Amino acid sequence: MAKLVGKRILVTQASDFMGPAICQELQICGAEVVADHRLAVGPQEAQSLIEAAGSLDALVINLALPAPSTPVTQIDEVEWQQVFDTMVNPLPRLVRAVVPGMKARGGGKIIVMGSASALRGMKRAASYSAARGAQLAYVQAAGVELASDNIQINAVAQNFVDNPTYFPAEVQANPRFHERLKREVPLGRLVKAEEDAQFVAYLCSDAASCFVGQVFPMSGGWAVR
Amino acid sequence: MAKLVGKRILVTQASDFMGPAICQELQICGAEVVADHRLAVGPQEAQSLIEAAGSLDALVINLALPAPSTPVTQIDEVEWQQVFDTMVNPLPRLVRAVVPGMKARGGGKIIVMGSASALRGMKRAASYSAARGAQLAYVQAAGVELASDNIQINAVAQNFVDNPTYFPAEVQANPRFHERLKREVPLGRLVKAEEDAQFVAYLCSDAASCFVGQVFPMSGGWAVR
Amino acid sequence: MAKLVGKRILVTQASDFMGPAICQELQICGAEVVADHRLAVGPQEAQSLIEAAGSLDALVINLALPAPSTPVTQIDEVEWQQVFDTMVNPLPRLVRAVVPGMKARGGGKIIVMGSASALRGMKRAASYSAARGAQLAYVQAAGVELASDNIQINAVAQNFVDNPTYFPAEVQANPRFHERLKREVPLGRLVKAEEDAQFVAYLCSDAASCFVGQVFPMSGGWAVR
Amino acid sequence: MAKLVGKRILVTQASDFMGPAICQELQICGAEVVADHRLAVGPQEAQSLIEAAGSLDALVINLALPAPSTPVTQIDEVEWQQVFDTMVNPLPRLVRAVVPGMKARGGGKIIVMGSASALRGMKRAASYSAARGAQLAYVQAAGVELASDNIQINAVAQNFVDNPTYFPAEVQANPRFHERLKREVPLGRLVKAEEDAQFVAYLCSDAASCFVGQVFPMSGGWAVR
Repeated sequence: MAKLVGKRILVTQASDFMGPAICQELQICGAEVVADHRLAVGPQEAQSLIEAAGSLDALVINLALPAPSTPVTQIDEVEWQQVFDTMVNPLPRLVRAVVPGMKARGGGKIIVMGSASALRGMKRAASYSAARGAQLAYVQAAGVELASDNIQINAVAQNFVDNPTYFPAEVQANPRFHERLKREVPLGRLVKAEEDAQFVAYLCSDAASCFVGQVFPMSGGWAVR
Repeated sequence: MAKLVGKRILVTQASDFMGPAICQELQICGAEVVADHRLAVGPQEAQSLIEAAGSLDALVINLALPAPSTPVTQIDEVEWQQVFDTMVNPLPRLVRAVVPGMKARGGGKIIVMGSASALRGMKRAASYSAARGAQLAYVQAAGVELASDNIQINAVAQNFVDNPTYFPAEVQANPRFHERLKREVPLGRLVKAEEDAQFVAYLCSDAASCFVGQVFPMSGGWAVR
Repeated sequence: MAKLVGKRILVTQASDFMGPAICQELQICGAEVVADHRLAVGPQEAQSLIEAAGSLDALVINLALPAPSTPVTQIDEVEWQQVFDTMVNPLPRLVRAVVPGMKARGGGKIIVMGSASALRGMKRAASYSAARGAQLAYVQAAGVELASDNIQINAVAQNFVDNPTYFPAEVQANPRFHERLKREVPLGRLVKAEEDAQFVAYLCSDAASCFVGQVFPMSGGWAVR
Repeated sequence: MAKLVGKRILVTQASDFMGPAICQELQICGAEVVADHRLAVGPQEAQSLIEAAGSLDALVINLALPAPSTPVTQIDEVEWQQVFDTMVNPLPRLVRAVVPGMKARGGGKIIVMGSASALRGMKRAASYSAARGAQLAYVQAAGVELASDNIQINAVAQNFVDNPTYFPAEVQANPRFHERLKREVPLGRLVKAEEDAQFVAYLCSDAASCFVGQVFPMSGGWAVR
């Protein structure tokens, strides 16, 4: 269990995707969790959101929407804009808003909840993957830049992690889904939400101060680099 | 020299970035080159651009702008939107427009001129890297999906390639630039524009029909995965 | 701090490389540590070594020798054989010996202490890198195979981690070494031995049961994929 | 078609694996091909082999054996030694022997025919993958070191390439094999031997002088990084 006593951590879009599992795990580890529940942080919102959260030791940028499964030739402007508005554009806003306070406090940690769909091609996932790819490349670049301020920004690139957004109960009840897992995912099962959240807690802890600009695949072995 | 006789190939933003070198090399290899010179293909433009180009065997998506070198905390909404409008948003438009004709003709090739800045973190390059990351992840996803239509979409992820956009004459005249190359780039020199273009010509040729959704680093060894 | 109470863990070559730091950290986390101090486990030794260790929850395969810095054209048969005898050949022996017991107990964890020199090319390190590359590829392959037995085998691929084998006190006392760190390592400092060991402890814990056949770079951002 | 007129190129183990296809393609491109047919070049043989070949512009290191499909717990010392003796140990011998002549001539190219099994884990392939991993890491390290001598060493990491060693006619005649290809390989078919060989020819050509220490996946999209 990561030690997070005395750490104040903001989790964005806390009702969706990995939000609930992460908030719960961070609290189990002793952190004071600030859960923000809004979707798609706009240009004017990030600053006030961060200010309202108070001084932060870590920020977990959890941004998600139900993944479109549109064939690549049918992705329209609306879908494209929506995935970027939800998952990509809030990223620099949040980082811009949170970094000055972290610098002033002598450091901090930012974890981006990303996707392994940006590491390995999947069919009918081009818009979603592109947005997730922007996230990961941003983390790599910002990571090497912010390292000298003792701010570590890293990402988890997940897939096949149990969460209600992508693997709702009705999908998991289908035996063919489990056959697919056995066939495609070396782990042979979904990664548990708490396994994912425990790793996020680890990345929020002092033990993880050595990682900068790194992407951690978390997909049961489906993609590992 | 790749054999491209009888191939009709469209190159976008042909005056910038790798455009001139690619157009020249494709012609040397015998291709009929359609050079489009507009910047930042808008939502309504892609369809007419592709229609005007006639039937295409390959499309080289060359999209670029002078890379901002803004510190990560100072990247504003305007810069972010501009890099995505120029390098990312045209991508699905062009693919959506070109693929139906390629399917009808039995196949085709799409090469995206991307950047190794999405493979390895660089300071003061977060907006640019993020946009380039979106491109590469899009290529991976679209690549596995379009493969069954005999359409191969791949990307070149370049850095330290000689081109007037990123390495103008005055930079190259500076001895410290060459010291930096020796120190940071295993090749010890810039990749020549024609080396880059020859590889693009290869990817446009029938010999390269076996590659799908792949990203080819081209950076003198600076980033190789 | 990873919870390892009730876990029995064997660490090989425990006096060298990351051995001391790992043994200490595992004990801090509550594990019962079996430290084996021999070098280069031979064909006949692995079985008895594992048997003598008793029933194991995890095995940390820590194999190292001072890295040769021979130019690629001067690497001779003796050096080549030595790096493989020390770091590569013991690997399948230890896995072969430990897996049946882990299967019988319902699962287990194997962590290989590898090197980022297999992820990114370094000069004067070809023999060492080759051996480390064999380790990482073995872990990937064995990882997907053993996953169905609830055995997770993963690797840490480290570089620029503080340890007396590779960064002795006299090196660290040299100001030019610190300039080099600032220039080459985004983190700007060596990874601390305990940071490395804490991550190993995490991989030994139940929280990490979702990772299979994965390589975790640990190099201060020098290599991240 | 790569231009190789006036180039003298040695191909090792020329009767096996990709040897025949590569020799044929290099000749089509105008190269003078020296085909060496021995298996597992021993410590004393590399020097005389290279000397007998005369002055070389390029060396294609093609080393293979039928891949064992042993479960990881049953890989014995004999199998392990055999895969390393065949595919790994000859590598430094050949490089050591060929580089001085290339240096004296002002440069040269070395291409290692490797495997994507070192990039992505496969079951029952641990010994083979480990040996292939040693090859790729060696290429990365030697590549950055030899670059300053104008010698480019790179590797092709292939899988699902048509060749009689790994996909004999009886396998290919099985309809279930084709179903497997559709399911596992985005390309939906085996890479043709000549596609692979054409890429090798490209890497032997002057056009490819910009690549150093790089691994090119060639696996129909099965592994792309």
